Amino acid sequence: MKRPLDEAALRSLARGCAVLGTGGGGDPHIGLLLALQAMQEHGPTELVDLADLDEDALIMPCGMVGAPTVHIEKIENGGEGAVLREQLERLTGRKVAALMPAEIGGSNGLLPLAWAGSMGLPVVDADGMGRAFPLIPQVTMHLAGIDPNPGIMTDERGNVLVFTAISGHWMERLERSAAVEFGGAGAATEYTMTVAQAKDGATVQGTYTLAIRIGDALTAAVGDAIGALTKITGGYPLLSGKITDVERRTTKGFVRGSAVVEGLGEDSGRLLRLEIQNENLVALEQGRVLASVPDLITILDSETADAIPTERVRYGQRVTVIAMPCAPIWRSPFGLEMAGPRAFGYDFDYISVEELAGASA
Amino acid sequence: MKRPLDEAALRSLARGCAVLGTGGGGDPHIGLLLALQAMQEHGPTELVDLADLDEDALIMPCGMVGAPTVHIEKIENGGEGAVLREQLERLTGRKVAALMPAEIGGSNGLLPLAWAGSMGLPVVDADGMGRAFPLIPQVTMHLAGIDPNPGIMTDERGNVLVFTAISGHWMERLERSAAVEFGGAGAATEYTMTVAQAKDGATVQGTYTLAIRIGDALTAAVGDAIGALTKITGGYPLLSGKITDVERRTTKGFVRGSAVVEGLGEDSGRLLRLEIQNENLVALEQGRVLASVPDLITILDSETADAIPTERVRYGQRVTVIAMPCAPIWRSPFGLEMAGPRAFGYDFDYISVEELAGASA
Repeated sequence: MKRPLDEAALRSLARGCAVLGTGGGGDPHIGLLLALQAMQEHGPTELVDLADLDEDALIMPCGMVGAPTVHIEKIENGGEGAVLREQLERLTGRKVAALMPAEIGGSNGLLPLAWAGSMGLPVVDADGMGRAFPLIPQVTMHLAGIDPNPGIMTDERGNVLVFTAISGHWMERLERSAAVEFGGAGAATEYTMTVAQAKDGATVQGTYTLAIRIGDALTAAVGDAIGALTKITGGYPLLSGKITDVERRTTKGFVRGSAVVEGLGEDSGRLLRLEIQNENLVALEQGRVLASVPDLITILDSETADAIPTERVRYGQRVTVIAMPCAPIWRSPFGLEMAGPRAFGYDFDYISVEELAGASA
Repeated sequence: MKRPLDEAALRSLARGCAVLGTGGGGDPHIGLLLALQAMQEHGPTELVDLADLDEDALIMPCGMVGAPTVHIEKIENGGEGAVLREQLERLTGRKVAALMPAEIGGSNGLLPLAWAGSMGLPVVDADGMGRAFPLIPQVTMHLAGIDPNPGIMTDERGNVLVFTAISGHWMERLERSAAVEFGGAGAATEYTMTVAQAKDGATVQGTYTLAIRIGDALTAAVGDAIGALTKITGGYPLLSGKITDVERRTTKGFVRGSAVVEGLGEDSGRLLRLEIQNENLVALEQGRVLASVPDLITILDSETADAIPTERVRYGQRVTVIAMPCAPIWRSPFGLEMAGPRAFGYDFDYISVEELAGASA
């Protein structure tokens, strides 16, 4: 099914991408502005299902690589997607049929849509994470064995880099160092695939639809926006309270740090600590893990249930922290190897948020 | 004229490249071993004059980018040149006719020769500096307006990067950050040109011949090797003495630091300080400039007149520091803008070594 995305859909999408971004993926406000501008100039971008495309059609996953803190100050010129596409078509000798966000989370869910719209291409209703993750090989394409090459990066100045990396790990290292040199962020594509591959487990399908549903639900909810959100996502509120400490540094192409939430009301007396690398990785209470990657942990404004990106978290904000189950593929052994707690240097095994919530209930 | 380079020529060349390297370009010993190995496996590499090649034949300037301190520990796999050539031919759709060192100085004068030999290609009797410099756009090709693109880099692991930079400055930034990520050094080509362009001021010609002549003279000299060297190069001894202090750090893809030489014998009571960024940039005595970039400043073993690369300078070495005039093109306004004292952050105007030596004589 093909659906043109109108302004209302884009605004809902932005709210949904923020929730699925788990703090990362870049502030969706930037992506929303670019998507609205593309819509005004070129008409609505079309969202297509993988089933609408030829099996051997080429999909270009894309987005920004770098630190979200940089992304809110160093804005794209809007033409990065066209540069990536031109290079990819030259390198593969094939036409790109549709764009796809490498990650649905944050601004990176909206940016490919803005780029696609300006080129008259559709976006597919899928992404490579079902959320946002900090590292380039933390995508379902990697789990499915898709070649990361060629990687392509460009910046708002017009520099272009083409990478042929010996592994996803080296693609991450080389693209990250280029992002740092660009000033902290750059536009990128890697893990190009066909529609057949995208259908065969290499993507998380339906994530645009999910993000729009989340945004719609938040907009429609009266009184209990958090309840509406946990219902759609199968998530669990971990704690409601006030941000009492934020430690955040932009280093080596990432934002790293932590945030502390002091419980209020029913949660009075409790303290929750979130560990951050672009995204919220782990929620801890007195050393006990309440939720961890690859499950989603999102900080919401307690009033509006709008997700607060990592770089906007501030002392005094009244927030509710929720955790949501990740796409099932991340719970596979390879998925956990790539994006479980140990992949981020934590010395504990992954336990699903459903199990953790059941244990504490 | 075409000349196959035998073992004696390679050994002389290595000594000459060390002198012209002004401390940088990588330890020539590494390049010599690779060149000797290539000769044993594939026969002698041929040195050709630009006049021997078709006007529109393609020349690939190449060498290592990074910190010389790294280069003596992180050795090439020997196949980097073939990767660069393959990529360049694919990108340009043309055959590479000959290799050329981006810089004749140090190991970078020998490495392209080893690579060329293993591919059955000649090297041209020219380079892009007539010495060694730390930065990528500090080449005569840049002065002649040759496009730095495409830049190509590879490492001993097999990663490949292709750069389309908006300027020589951005080529430097992007290649340097990749070199750092590779572990401090990587093989690279940029500023590809035709033979016609190489003849028309874009290269320093005859530098292989010069380097071999220097090496031959050092080998033949009895008693006064330093004298033989200054005669060939038009250089001036600045001071003879002992290394009494070395400060050297490998940072951001460069070696930076300084060395102090305390005069002995006739120079007793004098102190000379060399400032280093990969290469020896400035020689100072009590705040007075004795010589500076773009002129060549080289530290020689006082006994053998062998040049000592930056990364091998040590306390207690008995050395003679000499300064030699650079290729004339570096004394042009654009040449000084790119590689004069101010290009390295020094707040003084360039005065040629001939003039400085005349003033102090």
